[in-house]
Amino acid sequence: MSGRLFIVGLGPGDPSLQTPRAGEVLAQATDVVGYGPYVARVPERVGLTRHITDNREEIARARHALQLAAEGRSVAVVSSGDPGVFAMASAVFEAIESGTPDWRAIDIEVVPGVSAMFAAAARLGAPLGHDFCAISLSDNLKPWDVVLERLTAVARAGFVIALYNPISKARPWQLGAAFERLREVLGPQTPVAFARAISRPDERLLTTDLASAQPGDADMSTLVLIGSAQTRRIERRDGRSWLYTRRSLEAAS
Amino acid sequence: MSGRLFIVGLGPGDPSLQTPRAGEVLAQATDVVGYGPYVARVPERVGLTRHITDNREEIARARHALQLAAEGRSVAVVSSGDPGVFAMASAVFEAIESGTPDWRAIDIEVVPGVSAMFAAAARLGAPLGHDFCAISLSDNLKPWDVVLERLTAVARAGFVIALYNPISKARPWQLGAAFERLREVLGPQTPVAFARAISRPDERLLTTDLASAQPGDADMSTLVLIGSAQTRRIERRDGRSWLYTRRSLEAAS
Repeated sequence: MSGRLFIVGLGPGDPSLQTPRAGEVLAQATDVVGYGPYVARVPERVGLTRHITDNREEIARARHALQLAAEGRSVAVVSSGDPGVFAMASAVFEAIESGTPDWRAIDIEVVPGVSAMFAAAARLGAPLGHDFCAISLSDNLKPWDVVLERLTAVARAGFVIALYNPISKARPWQLGAAFERLREVLGPQTPVAFARAISRPDERLLTTDLASAQPGDADMSTLVLIGSAQTRRIERRDGRSWLYTRRSLEAAS
Repeated sequence: MSGRLFIVGLGPGDPSLQTPRAGEVLAQATDVVGYGPYVARVPERVGLTRHITDNREEIARARHALQLAAEGRSVAVVSSGDPGVFAMASAVFEAIESGTPDWRAIDIEVVPGVSAMFAAAARLGAPLGHDFCAISLSDNLKPWDVVLERLTAVARAGFVIALYNPISKARPWQLGAAFERLREVLGPQTPVAFARAISRPDERLLTTDLASAQPGDADMSTLVLIGSAQTRRIERRDGRSWLYTRRSLEAAS
């Protein structure tokens, strides 16, 4: 009697970066569940019910989607980018673990997507060209000390760092504190990029260095990339530049 | 006079996970350049010349593609997954940095793709649900001591770890040595997954734990995922299981 649950990554924004599989499952869904701006990216049609919730209600949203699927509906939970990267997939499984045993019988498909970090990297060149990591700066779900410890560990170890959730009204100071900590470990010339709303009409890309990076250049739609000692800038003929990270280790210049 | 260069991610294998943008640029290319199994995924057509090279010749392949583009051709360099993740994008920019100044005038577009790690994570549940990193185990381009230091740093700091290039004929012992190092830092029950050829006909998925993980379960087409203390296994009604990583920190069980 139970329906299906699709946990869908819509990609970074441009329809040409959304997978065909995402389109297929959205076409067969009876219900789409998610944060308003993401649900708005799913075309309206007869027979599709849209359930829009606030971005902070992830577990409640996950339970609602599971309940609908358990009632026999075909439900798509949508996220921007990839659903497994600081998005809804983890919340859904967390809801299952603590929820009714019936939910463990639901047929679930996670549809991967092009993540914000890979879309940003593609626009910049190849800054994730070697070992890299992704860290959420939100301290809603982990203590701030843990965030700082993790930043220190990966910066010292030579990883390129993608910072998700860098700033919000409720968390205005964390990104500045992260830059301060990173300046204790990495050189002032380390490349930093602010990649906002990549592939969407309001895309904005800014590259600078760690000494000059300003938290005010990030907003909730921005991914911040911090290079390693192997990250280089190449001047293009047109005056712009590419960022890339060398695949091999050599002494920092 | 110069042509165009597309650095294209083909996704993990299934056509339904390849972006429409990848299809668009492949349809307008005059030349496709890459490792044989990836070039084979591009449909043959009149007017498209295929250039197949061995997987170890990345810089030579990049220079060849740049030369063709500089001659006015429209060239697609293809990689599986995302081209910026242990694939061709970094090699192309490295070739540009050390190459003729003309190459800095080439119009380059990097087309991001669904990476192997996100396709694997989607199949498993949501194992990358919180802070994570990606490390190549290849020591062709960095000393093995650096690989071990990086593994230790991220395991101690609580990251989920995706291991690329875990094993090959030329590097038969590295994955076993990596497991040994990780066993010094992480608990024996830490989930480990071997995700091979995800979304392709020869897909194989194996989940185990760090105490039992066997290097022989990986080959060149396998991505190995190492959980953190927050990674859980949920038993499904059908006897299979999902893996996911909690978004919030709590004491290891």
